[in-house]
Amino acid sequence: MFENKSQENTSLEKLGEFGLIERLSKSFDCVNESTIKGIGDDSAVLDFKNKKTLISTDLLVEGVHFDLAYVPLKHLGYKAVVVNLSDIYAMNAVPTQITVSIAVSNRFPLEAIEELYAGIALASKKYGVDLVGGDTTSSTKGLLISVTAIGVADEKNITYRNGAQVDDLLVVTGDLGAAYLGLQVLERENEVFKVNPNSQPDLVGYTYLVERQLKPEARKDINGLLKVLGVNPTSMIDISDGLSSEILHLCKQSEVGCNLYEEKIPLDPTVISTCEEFSIDSTMVALSGGEDYELLFTVNQKDYDKIKGNPNLTVIGHMTEAKEGKHMVTRANTKVPLTAQGWNSFSEGN
Amino acid sequence: MFENKSQENTSLEKLGEFGLIERLSKSFDCVNESTIKGIGDDSAVLDFKNKKTLISTDLLVEGVHFDLAYVPLKHLGYKAVVVNLSDIYAMNAVPTQITVSIAVSNRFPLEAIEELYAGIALASKKYGVDLVGGDTTSSTKGLLISVTAIGVADEKNITYRNGAQVDDLLVVTGDLGAAYLGLQVLERENEVFKVNPNSQPDLVGYTYLVERQLKPEARKDINGLLKVLGVNPTSMIDISDGLSSEILHLCKQSEVGCNLYEEKIPLDPTVISTCEEFSIDSTMVALSGGEDYELLFTVNQKDYDKIKGNPNLTVIGHMTEAKEGKHMVTRANTKVPLTAQGWNSFSEGN
Repeated sequence: MFENKSQENTSLEKLGEFGLIERLSKSFDCVNESTIKGIGDDSAVLDFKNKKTLISTDLLVEGVHFDLAYVPLKHLGYKAVVVNLSDIYAMNAVPTQITVSIAVSNRFPLEAIEELYAGIALASKKYGVDLVGGDTTSSTKGLLISVTAIGVADEKNITYRNGAQVDDLLVVTGDLGAAYLGLQVLERENEVFKVNPNSQPDLVGYTYLVERQLKPEARKDINGLLKVLGVNPTSMIDISDGLSSEILHLCKQSEVGCNLYEEKIPLDPTVISTCEEFSIDSTMVALSGGEDYELLFTVNQKDYDKIKGNPNLTVIGHMTEAKEGKHMVTRANTKVPLTAQGWNSFSEGN
Repeated sequence: MFENKSQENTSLEKLGEFGLIERLSKSFDCVNESTIKGIGDDSAVLDFKNKKTLISTDLLVEGVHFDLAYVPLKHLGYKAVVVNLSDIYAMNAVPTQITVSIAVSNRFPLEAIEELYAGIALASKKYGVDLVGGDTTSSTKGLLISVTAIGVADEKNITYRNGAQVDDLLVVTGDLGAAYLGLQVLERENEVFKVNPNSQPDLVGYTYLVERQLKPEARKDINGLLKVLGVNPTSMIDISDGLSSEILHLCKQSEVGCNLYEEKIPLDPTVISTCEEFSIDSTMVALSGGEDYELLFTVNQKDYDKIKGNPNLTVIGHMTEAKEGKHMVTRANTKVPLTAQGWNSFSEGN
């Protein structure tokens, strides 16, 4: 899906790797004081002074993580950056630089790659990170994007997955499940398009869902919000694989159990109505859908007053002794064990 | 090429991403004081105190950068790390951490991926770097490896590409062209094997070339050697694309010209004899072959006495005013312009 279809296309073969790098790096300026040297040498040089450096990396593969039939390249570039920044925010830290590497087959003209980098530039600007390096290479098939995010934090603020304590409250930002449903809507429209290429996609009423899928945002605001509220989270993770899987990560690394309350899981009204339309369980979507890029964290119970009623934050459960297990308390008030795939409906809780 | 063919294979699908990560990360311990948190959270946490942080990244794609028909996976893992570390050494810095991401199709069993990571572990150990993160994902076709190397340096030691001055000496470590010829030898044997699968590869006499191709080493020693010699290089780059291309990078970024002396280019005797056998020009191989992972740097003329006669270092030319251009002085004492593809034999020097 190349947005500027009408223009003349330039082949990557003709341009060469150095030409491509030169062309792409033009639209990127460095704004962070910590960036000493960006693109253009054997490596970038950064200066974090007495602070800690954070590093996170992700691969996005065409046909596995995205389908160019319904993902515009600009959105893809934007999302590739955002999902990596989310990992830095999930340490309660601030991202400052990224590197972006792409492997791309010759079927992509320069203009397509420029669309991708326009999205990367947009995300970089919005989140205030500098593109300081990368690699561009050909692939035998399709497009692959590898992003590494670098961030900075004071040691005292860094929040790991392993700090949750028994009785801590489990808190989530925003709402869950929309990105997964956005994908279902896009896939449905793509199937319609395959049967009738003249059909126009019917996305009315699904704007929020589709946007959450195609142009997710990382929770840049939470780091600052928690500081303002005077709350030090005890553990933190971002929701990329689904609420259930992330809760299990926190429990495992913190060696605690958990009670999650089904009725507390924050869902957008569009998520609820679209789940009804698709005949799928909205709780299952929140637990296993993933790609929400919201933050999940724990706080001491004494901080409850500081966070209650905040529209960005929802208390969805509390941590327990490890031996009590990891459960969801359903609306019908039964306890079911949480699994990485959502919950195990075949096994009764104890 | 899976070395332990005789064993039972474990499918990646069955193991799952978390299982794979858990299994692979077992063989990696962190040894650097700067590694605060390695694998296992949303991001790694590093502490470089008052030093500068360096970041470099590379992608290796099956069918583009390597052919599993003749590259053992363990060697591939080793090489993927080494080529990235080389970029950090090329800043006159010391690598300390790496992240490794792989995209892999289901045709690879767990045992193949373990071979790959055995090579990664071997290189990490040899070069003293910690594996602190990464991503493992499936691909629709083949294997792709993305490595990011992180390093550290005192500000005063960092050597960029842009510091070469007029009259500086151009120095190269080791010898050139062997890795390219190693690839030619391996490709020839692979063609023989395709015609006659019972043939045994005939690599006698080519050991050095094949090793330089399959198991290259980065010049870990040069940083220390230069310190001992009391030499501060003015510019530096590693030789990944070929001597000619790297000289042009130094010249462009330093805004100088260069005279390279053909007769000074260091070649191993095996390179010379194999070039004769393959009927290719050994100078062309050194200029354009690439993958040598030697270091190319410039020093002030006053440092000549400190480096002359050192078996690791060869003075191959000197920098000139930019307006004098970038040339090679041939054995026949004619000047030919250097190009990124070697030299331009159709154009006479001025």
